[in-house]
Amino acid sequence: MYAITIPEPGGPETLVWAKVPDPVPGEGEVLVEVVAGAVNRADIMQRQGFYDPPPGASPYPGLECSGRITALGPGVTGWAVGDEVCALLAGGGYAEQVAVPVGQLLPVPRGLDLKQAAALPEVVCTVWSNVFMVAHLRPGETLLVHGGSSGIGTMAIQLAKAVGAKVAVTAGTKEKLERCAELGADILINYREQDFVAELNQATDGAGADVILDNMGAKYLDRNVKALAVNGRLAIIGMQGGVKGELNIGALLGKRAAISATSLRARPPAEKTAIVAAVREHVWPLIEGGHVRPVVDREIPMQDAADAHRCVEASSHIGKVLLIAP
Amino acid sequence: MYAITIPEPGGPETLVWAKVPDPVPGEGEVLVEVVAGAVNRADIMQRQGFYDPPPGASPYPGLECSGRITALGPGVTGWAVGDEVCALLAGGGYAEQVAVPVGQLLPVPRGLDLKQAAALPEVVCTVWSNVFMVAHLRPGETLLVHGGSSGIGTMAIQLAKAVGAKVAVTAGTKEKLERCAELGADILINYREQDFVAELNQATDGAGADVILDNMGAKYLDRNVKALAVNGRLAIIGMQGGVKGELNIGALLGKRAAISATSLRARPPAEKTAIVAAVREHVWPLIEGGHVRPVVDREIPMQDAADAHRCVEASSHIGKVLLIAP
Repeated sequence: MYAITIPEPGGPETLVWAKVPDPVPGEGEVLVEVVAGAVNRADIMQRQGFYDPPPGASPYPGLECSGRITALGPGVTGWAVGDEVCALLAGGGYAEQVAVPVGQLLPVPRGLDLKQAAALPEVVCTVWSNVFMVAHLRPGETLLVHGGSSGIGTMAIQLAKAVGAKVAVTAGTKEKLERCAELGADILINYREQDFVAELNQATDGAGADVILDNMGAKYLDRNVKALAVNGRLAIIGMQGGVKGELNIGALLGKRAAISATSLRARPPAEKTAIVAAVREHVWPLIEGGHVRPVVDREIPMQDAADAHRCVEASSHIGKVLLIAP
Repeated sequence: MYAITIPEPGGPETLVWAKVPDPVPGEGEVLVEVVAGAVNRADIMQRQGFYDPPPGASPYPGLECSGRITALGPGVTGWAVGDEVCALLAGGGYAEQVAVPVGQLLPVPRGLDLKQAAALPEVVCTVWSNVFMVAHLRPGETLLVHGGSSGIGTMAIQLAKAVGAKVAVTAGTKEKLERCAELGADILINYREQDFVAELNQATDGAGADVILDNMGAKYLDRNVKALAVNGRLAIIGMQGGVKGELNIGALLGKRAAISATSLRARPPAEKTAIVAAVREHVWPLIEGGHVRPVVDREIPMQDAADAHRCVEASSHIGKVLLIAP
């Protein structure tokens, strides 16, 4: 088969569409013929040499895909050749074929085409595991989403609204904020022009955010703690603003608040299986009922993955950038 | 009645045993004739002027007591005059009488004398709410307790062992560590002579602590994150080592770990009621079964509270220092 390879770390131009050995599904895995993959920031870090795949994972980038099952490994039940699926991957989504543990497979939701389903696994699993399974966002609470127009952000807005929460977002342009509003965001903050702590406090009568979904890390740490409500939970899933920051423990303690930091890719298969099962139970019905949908910015041929990376690195997109297999 | 008052902030000598108005139990409160109170570090901070009582609380220090109910306020059911109780207080335990919301009352556990029961409410509620209700310590996991010989520490060791966890403690003397071992601690670390991160890693084959109960705050923040296991939870309940510290978010994220910071006193009555109810359900049977007991260092007449504060400030005690009402 062909896959996007990374012969050496570097810029987008280092991505090479090359012939590689076909993957073979192991015990409890299926082989998926990929129809579409999608870009995540982790792929860019992997390309740059900062984020090696976990042990045993495919060396090619790509944390999610959609496609059709073409073969079953030993011990697989409940899935059949020909099934249309999407999948959470530890790697290997930028390829014509990928081997997937069955615990990371999801059926394509009714009403969605197969390509679009590639936009779902990583963002839905990330948002559900962090905002709901770790931070326990409840109806009536307020969620602050940084980067509201990203793939993660557009999904977080919709899922939080679907469960009856109030949603505040930050984004860097008027156009991005308008798209967030269309998806249901209640409080719109332009981080280039406004202080998100002050804006959020004003919009919540000083209460703050019960849950914050953060991709900035150190740069926002102090302000995120300030923006938290009493009993608030800060869920950090990215460090685009740095790795080490000063924590005001007194402020955290005064609010009886908590900070979690996670990454989905590094979780062991059993934890991924549990998250995928929870997503299928809680999120799939919302998608099939038309309450939540994937937001796709554009489709790019998989061979041109370099162009897709340039787009995401420029942050000019809204939602997900798909890679369509040839 | 008489109570320990704080005419102005300062050293132990500022504590004055003085005649004050009798408290009157309000709606849903009972009046307790105090037999014994106990000292907490928060009392010392209140005496120094750094920790004002929450709105509506008694102005006198004292976060726990034992005694007998002498009057019922309006709307009280389930308790009777003459009942022997201990209680979690928002203040006012250093006094001959105190008004207590019924949600913060506990019966004296069978097999314990009334004075000893004064050593229980604050430490049991603090340990249970943080280690079990927030950080969810599970059987087979490892708990690291800083200040293992303190009132909180001696209770945390026993409760964690009672549920089948492994316990590591830090303390500053050989004698204190020996007392921790008698209570069941498995891993003993003298923080004056040893690096707790290295010692814990060695004793757990590099796994680290699933839960850390920390009273040091900033001073230990970076080392606590280093000492956490994958999926570890750091529960901060004190800031004896400072308020602001550098947080390595990358290290936290690499372990999918979490940090919480709480104080019991500031919680609203409904949360205190929930904690007290959980303690009565889960901890009281362990005490009545002889598996867990209060550790009392010494008893001091309540009028001599200044001596009790000097003792706790010198950290020469092991377990709780009781104040016996006249």
